[in-house]
Amino acid sequence: VLIPSLFLALLYVSCRAEDAAMEELATEKEAEESHRQDSVNLLTFILLLTLTILTIWLFKHRRVRFLHETGLAMIYGLLVGVILRYGIPSTIYHNKTPPSCSLKEGPVSTLLLNVSGKFFEYTLKGEINSREIHNVEQNDMLRKVTFDPEVFFNILLPPIIFHAGYSLKKRHFFRNLGSIITYAFLGTAISCFVIGNLMYGVVKLMQAVGQLTDKFYYTDCLFFGAIASATDPVTVLAIFNELHADVDLYALLFGESVLNDAVAIVLSSSIVAYQPSGTNTHTFDASAFFKSVGVFLGIFSGSFAMGAVTGVVTALISFFTKLHCFPLLETALFFLMSWSTFLLAEACSFTGVVAVLFCGITQAHYTYNNLSEESTKRTKQLFEVLHFLAENFIFSYMGLALFTFQNHIFSPIFIVGAFLAIFIGRASNIYPLSFFLNLGRRHKISGNFQHMMMFAGLRGAMAFALAIRDTATYARQMMFTTTLLIVFFTVWVFGGGTTPMLSWLHIRVGSTLESQEEEERAKQWQYVRVGVDPDQDLQPIGDNFQVLQGDGPQHEGGSKTKQESAWLFRLWYTFDHNYLKPILTHSGPPLTTTLPGCCGPLARCLTSPQAYENHEQLRDTDSDLILNDGDLTLTYGDTAITANGASGGHDGTRGEWGGINGKTEAAPERDSEAREHETTSRGTRLVFPVEDHA
Amino acid sequence: VLIPSLFLALLYVSCRAEDAAMEELATEKEAEESHRQDSVNLLTFILLLTLTILTIWLFKHRRVRFLHETGLAMIYGLLVGVILRYGIPSTIYHNKTPPSCSLKEGPVSTLLLNVSGKFFEYTLKGEINSREIHNVEQNDMLRKVTFDPEVFFNILLPPIIFHAGYSLKKRHFFRNLGSIITYAFLGTAISCFVIGNLMYGVVKLMQAVGQLTDKFYYTDCLFFGAIASATDPVTVLAIFNELHADVDLYALLFGESVLNDAVAIVLSSSIVAYQPSGTNTHTFDASAFFKSVGVFLGIFSGSFAMGAVTGVVTALISFFTKLHCFPLLETALFFLMSWSTFLLAEACSFTGVVAVLFCGITQAHYTYNNLSEESTKRTKQLFEVLHFLAENFIFSYMGLALFTFQNHIFSPIFIVGAFLAIFIGRASNIYPLSFFLNLGRRHKISGNFQHMMMFAGLRGAMAFALAIRDTATYARQMMFTTTLLIVFFTVWVFGGGTTPMLSWLHIRVGSTLESQEEEERAKQWQYVRVGVDPDQDLQPIGDNFQVLQGDGPQHEGGSKTKQESAWLFRLWYTFDHNYLKPILTHSGPPLTTTLPGCCGPLARCLTSPQAYENHEQLRDTDSDLILNDGDLTLTYGDTAITANGASGGHDGTRGEWGGINGKTEAAPERDSEAREHETTSRGTRLVFPVEDHA
Repeated sequence: VLIPSLFLALLYVSCRAEDAAMEELATEKEAEESHRQDSVNLLTFILLLTLTILTIWLFKHRRVRFLHETGLAMIYGLLVGVILRYGIPSTIYHNKTPPSCSLKEGPVSTLLLNVSGKFFEYTLKGEINSREIHNVEQNDMLRKVTFDPEVFFNILLPPIIFHAGYSLKKRHFFRNLGSIITYAFLGTAISCFVIGNLMYGVVKLMQAVGQLTDKFYYTDCLFFGAIASATDPVTVLAIFNELHADVDLYALLFGESVLNDAVAIVLSSSIVAYQPSGTNTHTFDASAFFKSVGVFLGIFSGSFAMGAVTGVVTALISFFTKLHCFPLLETALFFLMSWSTFLLAEACSFTGVVAVLFCGITQAHYTYNNLSEESTKRTKQLFEVLHFLAENFIFSYMGLALFTFQNHIFSPIFIVGAFLAIFIGRASNIYPLSFFLNLGRRHKISGNFQHMMMFAGLRGAMAFALAIRDTATYARQMMFTTTLLIVFFTVWVFGGGTTPMLSWLHIRVGSTLESQEEEERAKQWQYVRVGVDPDQDLQPIGDNFQVLQGDGPQHEGGSKTKQESAWLFRLWYTFDHNYLKPILTHSGPPLTTTLPGCCGPLARCLTSPQAYENHEQLRDTDSDLILNDGDLTLTYGDTAITANGASGGHDGTRGEWGGINGKTEAAPERDSEAREHETTSRGTRLVFPVEDHA
Repeated sequence: VLIPSLFLALLYVSCRAEDAAMEELATEKEAEESHRQDSVNLLTFILLLTLTILTIWLFKHRRVRFLHETGLAMIYGLLVGVILRYGIPSTIYHNKTPPSCSLKEGPVSTLLLNVSGKFFEYTLKGEINSREIHNVEQNDMLRKVTFDPEVFFNILLPPIIFHAGYSLKKRHFFRNLGSIITYAFLGTAISCFVIGNLMYGVVKLMQAVGQLTDKFYYTDCLFFGAIASATDPVTVLAIFNELHADVDLYALLFGESVLNDAVAIVLSSSIVAYQPSGTNTHTFDASAFFKSVGVFLGIFSGSFAMGAVTGVVTALISFFTKLHCFPLLETALFFLMSWSTFLLAEACSFTGVVAVLFCGITQAHYTYNNLSEESTKRTKQLFEVLHFLAENFIFSYMGLALFTFQNHIFSPIFIVGAFLAIFIGRASNIYPLSFFLNLGRRHKISGNFQHMMMFAGLRGAMAFALAIRDTATYARQMMFTTTLLIVFFTVWVFGGGTTPMLSWLHIRVGSTLESQEEEERAKQWQYVRVGVDPDQDLQPIGDNFQVLQGDGPQHEGGSKTKQESAWLFRLWYTFDHNYLKPILTHSGPPLTTTLPGCCGPLARCLTSPQAYENHEQLRDTDSDLILNDGDLTLTYGDTAITANGASGGHDGTRGEWGGINGKTEAAPERDSEAREHETTSRGTRLVFPVEDHA
């Protein structure tokens, strides 16, 4: 379509204007007015966020838990939406309807407008349908308050997702990695197809009763399935965090929600990419299907590789330079490298958000260890603030969008069907997979945990961003409206019901800290809190561990399946710990001790002096305690394993534990949270230390 | 022009297309390609910044001082600009020229394009002239790498300016406030008119020798004067900071550069607003002139008020809520309120950048005292990172723009004239004003200091942003090119020559700290360093103080002028300290002690419990030490004043100094940097404590 020769034949038609100066002045006024309007709109959102922050403070101050900040942001957004929609007399906005001009060739990104011999440049914003043109006429104000959907994907989601990845450096996450991956990949796919098929039934029903006036294909239903499969239990997790609920349940929920966002976004791209050849473009076509599967695998692995590579490059840069003397430069570099991951992935047509997620995980795993103490704080805090602002902005925008979005299609049958479908979809994700996982897990996911996971299937920012990205067709508009309602309902009802649900399901909660401030600090900087959970022995369901039990002599049989499933992970862990960490970070054992003798010179060249120090001090900033000599025998529960059961990576008690090496400890205060699990490998004994589940 | 009825008569001409699906696919591809191109462009800048950071690290590591990070960023920008311009074969970009369409009515912000019955929405980017249309044809790539100039004003400048304001909370700044304001307001105005008039002479000369092909009015010359009067000695200040050069000189330079940015931006707006009525629009018109002066005063005071009010509101919010228990909420609120200042000012047609500057100063003065310790760090670090990134981005963009900007007009006469004019302009700012200021100052600004201030007249981000904002006319394009060259020259030559210049002018420098890391920390968190300057007594020019000497009995005569000029400031200071600080912050004396007895109940109601504590502990987070009882007699230099001469607000030594109250100290290590000056007022003795000049 874009044949160059066509465009070279430009036709500039000029019209004479009576007063060029007046014209110019009017243009300036127009531009100024537009800029002012933008400022006012942005100001509205900022004041909304300010109001939200102040109310959150009040709620936290008074320990109100039934409404989370995101729920609150939505309520305020709704109120402002109502005011904008009904409070401001719409007549004053009636007077501006954009003029139109026509062109034979397809739309281009840049358009020149010739007004009285002067040329003005215009940039493409997007296609609008005929319904919207009338809306343009109706209410310009509401349209102005509407953001470009790509803002969500390119500006607001990346910090949220990166922060999630950067917070994943948790023992309990890696202990439950197998289950998390199962839920996130297999579970999301199941949920997507279940919801998609159920919704196809609903659509058929709607067509039968004549409620559907426009096209709604099977691929649209599947797309809705992908949208509605991205869970975001931010409310639930905040309450878990505050109440110190079970750490493994927390890890399962958090890990699943982080990874299933990535899966859902790539899944939706693959569904959009499903373009069967031939005349009927909406029937099943095996080759197109496999192409979509290929797209899924390609985008996912590409984004994954992109994120991991940038993370590793950042780790290498921070490893080889002594940048940690300059925290500002270090933080700036960290920020830029993480952002470049996003752009690099987008430039290569992968998914930036997914790349940023894996970049965050890699940064947390490697780069974090090379940063100076101040930079670790700075980067954490920087992304924490960005994440907080972006998340609350999205949620208040959601509230606003319910009233200011111009093309809502409320279809009661579709909405009721969707609510049923997402519950069935979530159930067919959690319960069957939990059953199969429990076959392999030594520490089963109890029924109550499954119910809680089912309950925590909230939908949030990702579902919204996916739904708003494309609202061009009738089907997509109906989906958007429904998604919005699903988010409202789940955040308010399920989010608010978390505390009662926890006590109803008898899920153990820890003691609440004295003040939120302490908790915030503890969450960030204190890895281990021994005995934070005094009532856990009273709770029978506290027994929920997936032990990465090694092949040591103390291993008790009966979990052969478990052992096999952990084998691959153990292999990776050993490789990571012995080779990757020493090469990429200043922590971990020196390469000279882990590499075979023949690689001695290379190892010496790659090992930093710090590594030797760490080695001597038994220091490990990544909270993997290395015990090189001495077999410590320890009793926990009813099993004796050779490990020091107390808090290894604990910052504050490191001094105390320095001298304990080689001695046998009784450790009477040992509890399930402070238990250590170990795996033996090539002369290095790895103990998974206790880390708080923030 | 924008008559509603005209636009209601929309004419939608439809054209049939052969294959709508193909068309749609092509549009999607086009949009995707455009998005990818944007990602690549942004990625280029990010990699540029990354490279800059790594090189800065190398330079700091090796203590290279002749090239600052901003100068480096420009060099890398230049290199990338050369590659983009000449390295990439331009033929591949020849194929895209935007199509044009014509319209009778004036340009509007939103335009609809009708392509084969589908409507696409376009937004106005700006006017382009006929020259540029050909450039569009020539090289689309270079155009794409060019940012919208408003990005600089709305995204990049605010964090830089806010950070500058937020860093102004310095004793030496307030001690030299009178001189700083004189240089910034009067000096910038003088500089603007001197440069403007000189350039008008140059323009006349160019017209005489036939070098000027287009219109160039007197107002254009004045506009150039305003652009070129905004100094930005970031390079010099960085070296001052590193070498611990004289603190008062630092305060004078920094204060002047911060405030004259605000003056220059408002001055340029006023000059643009100068629109004489009548036929000849470029002759002098008294009413238009006074209107311009009115615009200047209106915009400046409006922006000032806007910034101050938002700052005070933030202080009040942080005062009345116990938000400091939640550092994340506090930081987010601080960020949002500071940003809303910008938007509020823009929405009210004031200047956002100026408002943000005064907001920063107010926040530093009041809100900062109410923040939790963690939030003070967080906010500082957050804005430090934003400032660092924005500044280096602007400077690397400058380097790039020299080659990628399409409408450079290199006029040798204009450029040489401009270089001469800015030096004469700077000289007629510094030398005469210093002479008059020295009449009033007790501690004169020495000749060498004046030469250094003259030398430090670098131009930077603000001059560039003002110049690039409007490059529509021939005159403006010539100005932009010249400004770019001025920035390059001053940053590289004067920036690089700072260290030799300092030693040539015999300006004392302190001992360099052991490592940059220590210095960074000291800069941020350590207010006082006593005796950092061991060789100052050897330097006769160390005697450069403007003493805010109070009206105590120990005051030595001979500086009546000084005393009078400080009277207004002292009045404000007393009012601020006794009333504003107690009302707005948790520091300062309790209102109950400063308000008259009749206001007792009100005072008790407004005074926070913390204030009493502070009062008792002699604690003052704003580093104004209050000594309520006991007259301490102290000898410094040859003057005895009643004050404790040592570091009052010093964080680390507060404990030591607690017991010193009421005793007489000899304080042998007292030096000019550690000297205390005091002013007595209503039962409260204010001692200006020592604070580091960061």
